Amino acid sequence: MPAAFLDRSFAEQLDRDDPLVDVRDRFDLPEGLVYLDGNSLGALPRGVAQRVADVVAREWGEDLIGSWNTAGWMSLPDVVAAKIAPLVGADGDELAVTDSTSVNIFKLLAAAVALRPERRTIVMEPSTFPTDGYVGASAARTYGLELRWCDPDDPLAAVDDDTAVLSLTHVDFRTGRRYDEQHITEGARGKGALMMWDLCHTAGAVPFDLHATGAELAVGCTYKYLNGGPGAPAYAYVARDLHERIEQPLTGWMGHAEPFAMALDYEPAPGVRRLRVGTPAVLSLAALDTALDAFAGVAVADLRAKSQRLTGLFIDLVRARTDVAVVTPDDPEARGSQVSLRHPQAYGIVQALIERGVVGDFRTLDLARFGFAPMYLRAVDVWDAVEQLVEVLANEEFARPAYAVRAAVT
Amino acid sequence: MPAAFLDRSFAEQLDRDDPLVDVRDRFDLPEGLVYLDGNSLGALPRGVAQRVADVVAREWGEDLIGSWNTAGWMSLPDVVAAKIAPLVGADGDELAVTDSTSVNIFKLLAAAVALRPERRTIVMEPSTFPTDGYVGASAARTYGLELRWCDPDDPLAAVDDDTAVLSLTHVDFRTGRRYDEQHITEGARGKGALMMWDLCHTAGAVPFDLHATGAELAVGCTYKYLNGGPGAPAYAYVARDLHERIEQPLTGWMGHAEPFAMALDYEPAPGVRRLRVGTPAVLSLAALDTALDAFAGVAVADLRAKSQRLTGLFIDLVRARTDVAVVTPDDPEARGSQVSLRHPQAYGIVQALIERGVVGDFRTLDLARFGFAPMYLRAVDVWDAVEQLVEVLANEEFARPAYAVRAAVT
Repeated sequence: MPAAFLDRSFAEQLDRDDPLVDVRDRFDLPEGLVYLDGNSLGALPRGVAQRVADVVAREWGEDLIGSWNTAGWMSLPDVVAAKIAPLVGADGDELAVTDSTSVNIFKLLAAAVALRPERRTIVMEPSTFPTDGYVGASAARTYGLELRWCDPDDPLAAVDDDTAVLSLTHVDFRTGRRYDEQHITEGARGKGALMMWDLCHTAGAVPFDLHATGAELAVGCTYKYLNGGPGAPAYAYVARDLHERIEQPLTGWMGHAEPFAMALDYEPAPGVRRLRVGTPAVLSLAALDTALDAFAGVAVADLRAKSQRLTGLFIDLVRARTDVAVVTPDDPEARGSQVSLRHPQAYGIVQALIERGVVGDFRTLDLARFGFAPMYLRAVDVWDAVEQLVEVLANEEFARPAYAVRAAVT
Repeated sequence: MPAAFLDRSFAEQLDRDDPLVDVRDRFDLPEGLVYLDGNSLGALPRGVAQRVADVVAREWGEDLIGSWNTAGWMSLPDVVAAKIAPLVGADGDELAVTDSTSVNIFKLLAAAVALRPERRTIVMEPSTFPTDGYVGASAARTYGLELRWCDPDDPLAAVDDDTAVLSLTHVDFRTGRRYDEQHITEGARGKGALMMWDLCHTAGAVPFDLHATGAELAVGCTYKYLNGGPGAPAYAYVARDLHERIEQPLTGWMGHAEPFAMALDYEPAPGVRRLRVGTPAVLSLAALDTALDAFAGVAVADLRAKSQRLTGLFIDLVRARTDVAVVTPDDPEARGSQVSLRHPQAYGIVQALIERGVVGDFRTLDLARFGFAPMYLRAVDVWDAVEQLVEVLANEEFARPAYAVRAAVT
């Protein structure tokens, strides 16, 4: 990058050249805030407040039980799935929008075990988001398998002909490292294992083509780059050719072929609908449904290009203006849409930045994490964030006594 | 009841004498509608719309990720649990508000199996709500037990020294029959089995004292008589003396002792918090939180007395003015807060009543089901509903061709 990038006008020019610059207008963002935590909780898309208000006051309040049919509550999971699908390279009817990521991981690992009954290990990597590992260990225990931790730098080395499923998070929640999904999926499948991807830090910012990879299984949340709101429902993907062979243990009535037949015996619904369990969370689903409309007409490739510009600019500016270590890979292809910095005072740095209107987050033990949601961030936000970081470091604002107490939320 | 009950003025007098008559004002109910489906989806309590709007626009939209702490999102499950607890005779810290009823049934049955490792059967009754049976069968299969169906009229006859857990729905979703929870719980525990109650059709209308019964486990939804809104989160109860012995397989990060330590190994949180799994559904939890405020100062005994007055009046009027069969028990102590009628044209009857502004629901094959939520229904609603029923029957409105297609939602 030219030395000119040190000047804010460089960032301003990037924004003028940004084909997605107007997409920011699809969000309600607080004036003056530099929000670099959309990888934890995405910003509020315009229209969501009105949609939710309508669901509460009119659909629930006035039309009451009838809204399950007349307002389309019953079909909301399908409607939402169809909007997520193009962002992860799937068809809408290959995604079940339901429950939390954690619950879906259990379901899909159980399904994987049943699909590879002769294989006795589940392979995961120890730097994955904790819930993946916790649920992986439990699924292994429940079904009498072993959970094997792989080397995060070489997951395929742990996969052998006893591996039922390799389960990896595509973009690491701490470092932002992105796996080569094509290479890894092919490697795992080449050994007869199923491949499951956790797309929590991928969908909405980083391209992923489930069909092209050939991966059989995937999960993801919707409250990060998909902007579905706090605790919005998660999704589970199963490749079409396995649909009629999925067996999972959370056999709730909404996954039954005919929920309202009220039959005594469980008969799984066709396809991924059998991954549904209980009554869908309508308020959260409706918010997510409208939130996803912000992606209308936005090409995933454009999001990726912008994300790489923003993360690249951040890395370059941090390197040029501070001596804080960047732990996220330099290679733009090897990272997701976040940049993490390592500093012994990372917690204090994050807190001091928040007081200055730059919101990132802290990840224990020593990481300051900054997410760059390409839907609504600008290059000037990146520039301004680094400017504030430089001042926090210069003034040692991170050393305030109040920052001795630590807390954070993913 | 005196013959005077045939006249609407009798109902009007009941309402004037009703100590809960003003509680109706805590709900936004459509003018002129007689809503007898609060046992499926409770009405909208006042204040919920404003609360949800504030959560979306201010907490999410303006304060963003910070709201997990500053707006109390992290503690919402505990706050809500403390409001549900007195309605089911529990302490707040014995309830986990999380996931759906179906998912919670799986967790608690798994916990029950681990608590009674030498016992090999789960006993349920075949007329239970289908999801209970489906999940019960799956839990049995997963852990190598047998699911044994009991006689609905004598559940204890199926319980023996091989029974790990007896799981029953307190109030039957079809007939409204209420089990004697004290007698059954003591019987099951007397044989060394654990007792699990499904309180979906109980909490908010029918008293239940978990502590007094001695039942170890319970689940329930919050969108029926608790008025939490469509798909609001469910709850799971575990008696305090078992708290540190609960093992359940959905070991998500929110059930970890220190979610933000991001530790490699799962360490269960103290008590029922280990029943939490993924990120809580904040929009739905907030709606539920405000919805429960409608119960402030309302005695469960008063709710029960009113519910029995309403269901009794409905049964008497139906018997006096129609020849439709009542399947709900005559004994007020033996029923919940609903009355079901059996008629070969039940679907058409329900549809014709809806067109006349009386909302009940149909349950296959031949039941017309009417729920009497004592929080907001009046005796005149009961009277008016029967008046409309009489006209529907007299005019044979149930026979319209449009009613040949059947659909319904619990």
